Amino acid sequence: MEPVSAAVSAVLPAGGSGERLGGATPKQFCGLQGRPLVSYAVRAMERVSWISDIIVVVSPENIETMKSIVEKYGHKRVTVVKGGITRHRSIFNGLKVFAENQSSNRLLQKPEVVIIHDAVRPFVEEDILLKVVTAAKEHGAAGAIRPLVSTVIASGEDGCLDHSLERARYRASEMPQAFLFDVIYEAYQQCTDHDLDYGTECLHLALKYCKTNAKLVEGTADLWKVTYKRDLYAAESIIKDNLSQQICIITDLKEAVAQVGFLLHESLKSQVKVEAISISLRKNDSHLQNIFSGECYNFLCINDKEYATEEIQQLVDMLEKSNIPLLYPVILILVHLSISENISFSIGLEELTKIKKFAREVKKKNILVYGLLIQCKEKKRKNYHVE
Amino acid sequence: MEPVSAAVSAVLPAGGSGERLGGATPKQFCGLQGRPLVSYAVRAMERVSWISDIIVVVSPENIETMKSIVEKYGHKRVTVVKGGITRHRSIFNGLKVFAENQSSNRLLQKPEVVIIHDAVRPFVEEDILLKVVTAAKEHGAAGAIRPLVSTVIASGEDGCLDHSLERARYRASEMPQAFLFDVIYEAYQQCTDHDLDYGTECLHLALKYCKTNAKLVEGTADLWKVTYKRDLYAAESIIKDNLSQQICIITDLKEAVAQVGFLLHESLKSQVKVEAISISLRKNDSHLQNIFSGECYNFLCINDKEYATEEIQQLVDMLEKSNIPLLYPVILILVHLSISENISFSIGLEELTKIKKFAREVKKKNILVYGLLIQCKEKKRKNYHVE
Repeated sequence: MEPVSAAVSAVLPAGGSGERLGGATPKQFCGLQGRPLVSYAVRAMERVSWISDIIVVVSPENIETMKSIVEKYGHKRVTVVKGGITRHRSIFNGLKVFAENQSSNRLLQKPEVVIIHDAVRPFVEEDILLKVVTAAKEHGAAGAIRPLVSTVIASGEDGCLDHSLERARYRASEMPQAFLFDVIYEAYQQCTDHDLDYGTECLHLALKYCKTNAKLVEGTADLWKVTYKRDLYAAESIIKDNLSQQICIITDLKEAVAQVGFLLHESLKSQVKVEAISISLRKNDSHLQNIFSGECYNFLCINDKEYATEEIQQLVDMLEKSNIPLLYPVILILVHLSISENISFSIGLEELTKIKKFAREVKKKNILVYGLLIQCKEKKRKNYHVE
Repeated sequence: MEPVSAAVSAVLPAGGSGERLGGATPKQFCGLQGRPLVSYAVRAMERVSWISDIIVVVSPENIETMKSIVEKYGHKRVTVVKGGITRHRSIFNGLKVFAENQSSNRLLQKPEVVIIHDAVRPFVEEDILLKVVTAAKEHGAAGAIRPLVSTVIASGEDGCLDHSLERARYRASEMPQAFLFDVIYEAYQQCTDHDLDYGTECLHLALKYCKTNAKLVEGTADLWKVTYKRDLYAAESIIKDNLSQQICIITDLKEAVAQVGFLLHESLKSQVKVEAISISLRKNDSHLQNIFSGECYNFLCINDKEYATEEIQQLVDMLEKSNIPLLYPVILILVHLSISENISFSIGLEELTKIKKFAREVKKKNILVYGLLIQCKEKKRKNYHVE
């Protein structure tokens, strides 16, 4: 991913009431696998290293809720801002924080480019963010679009069809969008009360008030907005799907072991999302921390040491600190690679007891430990299952 | 529901390739809880007694698949018709069957009003069908609409925003739609090859070729079209949700027992969809058959007979014939109402053994039987759990 040569920040309007959802909880605060929707959107932004600040705009009554979400899920670079009574007024409030430097928490630098993204679109990827930011730098404004799913029609005053639009000529305007900060802020400053109260489209404001024709960027299907209850169901299923299709292979730095990790990566990568890293687990590795914050739930640790529980304890400590096992069971498969000359089918009883005890202990922390012993010399394998 | 005073039939185009779904199986044949999507849409039509014939139009290579679905799920009133290379050509083929009476299976009567509905919109209710049919009788054409979820924009040739549409003035055109048969058939006969190949909107054809401005009818959120993989997730979740929120209370014809059924109905109806019927289980009741075909999975049978297993066996036989337990576990709660003078807290061991054995037996058929004993005289209750 090429670096972005501009100061970029993001504003996430999260002030909606979720009327269309038909529930009491606004949709951005509905839990998916235990975590509120807004937290997924924030996390998607946080993962992108070149986004400096993330402003989440919520209605006054939800300020405390949002702050507690930021604390509970350890979100960084997030400032919670009080919204207005409409979407545009909320976004405007978010932008003002940069322009007026009025945040009470800390000084926020005015970005060159600002991303606007909905709190109820949890699956935004770095790729599309980069595309809209790059296009915004060039064109002043840019937004993701999608083909229309249904034909769009205009009705007459009698409630009958007036005309239908040719589907191929139109697109659905989605999020994320990005703007040169000065363009969109100028547009909001010029914006009439009527537009602030009844409009919904930021690209339209940039065009109307700053004569800036936004560049339209084709987005992927997963940019859709969680609007109805069925969308919550869909989002939850997608999250579950992603979880089960991700695995992190951790090996130590020794060549033979790292080689096994590499081979595993190669053979698995067509089926699941695999990340393979070679590190010393005794050190607090920042790359590993990144993987945790990306919420991987399946880990495969390969080593050739006879007594590896101490190292694994380090990994468990890091997992615990990351808060992941709070939400979901983490699967940890320990692979012991025995490359010694002396092949023995029995693992030491003492060591087995130790691992079993360890597995029982961490199970209480929602971390499920499985063990696998691979003996290499004779190319025979023996599996053992712990807890 | 008021009766419809017209001959009404339906055409379901099911010829799509499901490209947007990203899978090998066209979405209409994707299984939701084991049953293909198209079967849900067909069932939704079948449940409506005033729809005479249901034409399902599929691409030539899926004719046999569709016929086997009709057979497997016991669909009635369905004729499978070979589709064309586009949506409009497929619908036209479906209409021709009525006009030309060319079906090889049997003679199909030309309806006064024809409903057109997508095979990938499984949750259509009788209410909206009635509304579009009634409006079509009056206006010649009618279709369900929904508010737009996203702003619709037009792009210029440079890939930049040209203009955005005012969201409040436009609607998404959804299904079902209904037409006077002669209007839509005339429109298809007049239709140019270009429209047959590139158009998608039936309301547009009625307007363009027959000067018929369709009446637009606000539909509910559940009319949405299964388009992407996330929609399959959503549909499956909705189906599961519905299943758990439906219960059928069955009592025999005795007053005291029927009264308990009525009271249960009253107290449950605010929380779940309840159907309460009083019948003799020894007879093959058509009302009960209808409930089975509506796929209810929770049954509560109340009786005051000491030995009711024979009657229950009848119910189990009917359930088995309905194919329901093939797909989902059926919950059957037997409530024995003991209104005798002699209160005894112990149920006869012989009877208990009999019920337990019965429960074990039907569990193999995916029917889970639970028992509840209610003793009325002293207003004490004792629950027993079978298997």
